[in-house]
Amino acid sequence: MKTAVIRKEHFNAAHRLHNPAWSAERNQEVFGKCNNNNYHGHNYDLFVKVIGEPDPETGYVYDMKELRDLIKEHVTDRFDHKNLNLDVPEFENLNPSAENIAAVIWKALRAQIDEQFDLKVTLYETERNFVEYPA
Amino acid sequence: MKTAVIRKEHFNAAHRLHNPAWSAERNQEVFGKCNNNNYHGHNYDLFVKVIGEPDPETGYVYDMKELRDLIKEHVTDRFDHKNLNLDVPEFENLNPSAENIAAVIWKALRAQIDEQFDLKVTLYETERNFVEYPA
Amino acid sequence: MKTAVIRKEHFNAAHRLHNPAWSAERNQEVFGKCNNNNYHGHNYDLFVKVIGEPDPETGYVYDMKELRDLIKEHVTDRFDHKNLNLDVPEFENLNPSAENIAAVIWKALRAQIDEQFDLKVTLYETERNFVEYPA
Amino acid sequence: MKTAVIRKEHFNAAHRLHNPAWSAERNQEVFGKCNNNNYHGHNYDLFVKVIGEPDPETGYVYDMKELRDLIKEHVTDRFDHKNLNLDVPEFENLNPSAENIAAVIWKALRAQIDEQFDLKVTLYETERNFVEYPA
Amino acid sequence: MKTAVIRKEHFNAAHRLHNPAWSAERNQEVFGKCNNNNYHGHNYDLFVKVIGEPDPETGYVYDMKELRDLIKEHVTDRFDHKNLNLDVPEFENLNPSAENIAAVIWKALRAQIDEQFDLKVTLYETERNFVEYPA
Amino acid sequence: MKTAVIRKEHFNAAHRLHNPAWSAERNQEVFGKCNNNNYHGHNYDLFVKVIGEPDPETGYVYDMKELRDLIKEHVTDRFDHKNLNLDVPEFENLNPSAENIAAVIWKALRAQIDEQFDLKVTLYETERNFVEYPA
Repeated sequence: MKTAVIRKEHFNAAHRLHNPAWSAERNQEVFGKCNNNNYHGHNYDLFVKVIGEPDPETGYVYDMKELRDLIKEHVTDRFDHKNLNLDVPEFENLNPSAENIAAVIWKALRAQIDEQFDLKVTLYETERNFVEYPA
Repeated sequence: MKTAVIRKEHFNAAHRLHNPAWSAERNQEVFGKCNNNNYHGHNYDLFVKVIGEPDPETGYVYDMKELRDLIKEHVTDRFDHKNLNLDVPEFENLNPSAENIAAVIWKALRAQIDEQFDLKVTLYETERNFVEYPA
Repeated sequence: MKTAVIRKEHFNAAHRLHNPAWSAERNQEVFGKCNNNNYHGHNYDLFVKVIGEPDPETGYVYDMKELRDLIKEHVTDRFDHKNLNLDVPEFENLNPSAENIAAVIWKALRAQIDEQFDLKVTLYETERNFVEYPA
Repeated sequence: MKTAVIRKEHFNAAHRLHNPAWSAERNQEVFGKCNNNNYHGHNYDLFVKVIGEPDPETGYVYDMKELRDLIKEHVTDRFDHKNLNLDVPEFENLNPSAENIAAVIWKALRAQIDEQFDLKVTLYETERNFVEYPA
Repeated sequence: MKTAVIRKEHFNAAHRLHNPAWSAERNQEVFGKCNNNNYHGHNYDLFVKVIGEPDPETGYVYDMKELRDLIKEHVTDRFDHKNLNLDVPEFENLNPSAENIAAVIWKALRAQIDEQFDLKVTLYETERNFVEYPA
Repeated sequence: MKTAVIRKEHFNAAHRLHNPAWSAERNQEVFGKCNNNNYHGHNYDLFVKVIGEPDPETGYVYDMKELRDLIKEHVTDRFDHKNLNLDVPEFENLNPSAENIAAVIWKALRAQIDEQFDLKVTLYETERNFVEYPA
């Protein structure tokens, strides 16, 4: 049987939900106050889960210090205290919904973590709205 | 791969665990202080998870405002500040254990949410006792 | 300078806000859904703060095991899994608002704790509504 | 002795720390990543404390539904899903530090709450950084 | 469909990560400050999940009072306020990483719970580092 | 009126409550399982509150990055992943009760923070037992 290890990190960012192919009215109708022209923001809580077998010499599935550093380099240093729409290239043509942010984070980390490990991401936009990828 | 979106809501309700087919002694023995004649109560925290594929136009698996409104209409407006045993018809002949409450909520929401989406419910009776349906 | 020690306990209870001197209409108007005839309930979180000087032999302001036992005997064993209006004598003629519950708890504990110590009580009815006595 | 009642609300907003009287270098040096040109954001948790004597007829210091509505009208409807620097007039010439936001909120609510009540505000910018006004 | 019930318990323990087959340098390099000679410690939060079908007579998947007592007897009475490396026999030759502690707890409880029920354990070492077994 | 700013930090440490002037029996009787010979441990959550007037140029009472670094240098780098009794000189002859740890932290930080600011420390040993100094 496998074991999962989970690391919690966070970042604070501005964003705006907007589909440039739509009219202002349609954006307002679908995204409501999340479409605010001048952006709004969140304290995002991020949980990264790595699934594998513990190494018998260390008792570790994955070194949590190494996982922390990977998340810092590939996610939080790039997203924290930023405007996701304007400052993070992945969202230049992608709406920064929680679902899309989670998938972008998953892809960034999947490229760094050996394929023997499964990877899942949970992202809290608020304590009442959060997403998991993959489900 | 699919994405899950989760919405947290809550309601405050009175309830009592009791099996009318049993003697008072048997009820007391099995349910203990949860069988208190005059009811007791909880702040229930409810997490509703909807699993599907994000819509490419919105980046949404499911519009969380719509999910919030569905939960309000079909669950919290009917359960909040109520006595589950006396005020909610589903528990007229069903013991309002956390397991049964979660299944009742799941059925109420399953009828409202398109079959393309999977649905799961997590219900906290206290921060130390909670249930998931389906597991 | 003095030091405060704080102990967290909890109890789950049913209650109803109601003023018997008023009409049903007036009760409904003032207390809204908190006036529900058949009660509703809460997970109450209780914080008891004792203020004094640490004993040089133990480093303790107050033995937390003793404080835990006092709260159990004089508060939670009497309130937990009960209907505050019907099962707890202090509320026979006193509306069990959070403010009044906190004052009743304070009086029960004040009688047990030596006067050299100051005493304060914080009571959470929900995570969004709570009270402190004395302020 | 008086009793305090506390109501928790929240809002999600973008902001940027910036002193227009300073050079870009000085702003960067003092405010660091909080000075990001394109803003960043937070989930702000707001606790409003009202201190007074419970009314003997209701057991309430202050009707929490009324307090909730006051906070909604005078604070969260004006701040939630907004850019504090650009969308909220009070910050046109005032840096939206947590300290200043708390004082602005206090002033907005102080004007609405009778002087017989004391008023205090606690504002969480993150779970690790928060402020109280007045201290 | 099955239902899961989850019980939260906790224990406070000292531990040290150390592989006796390695040099002091190698231990320091791999385990860092977790290798501190004189131990360090944690408040461990433990979630035990039991999966099965609710009994139609009780509405219970598993009696939570019984689950609480099993965890107390087989886990927390043996781990709480102990030094895992020195006081708990299972770790005499097993590094008390969170992964290994979770597996030891799972084995202790699996022996007590009927095979008709599935069993999972989640163990928080800190709120930012936690593990699930089986994944 | 003054404003308070609060910073949350944490450290994980082993400790043991013990009075060397007492017999083993007396230590066991007073400190119970906290007297365990081989130590136990906690995740300590530390809140440091600094009270003063916001600087009109920054809107800051105290630069939180500076406060974070002071706490790191003078407290958490010295306490984290340590055995308080054996590794931290202040407890060589002082019982590391939560009350005494809070006072030691307060003294360490008081020496670093200008006298124009008031200083208070809150230390959580567990989420159910915590202390404030000064009260």
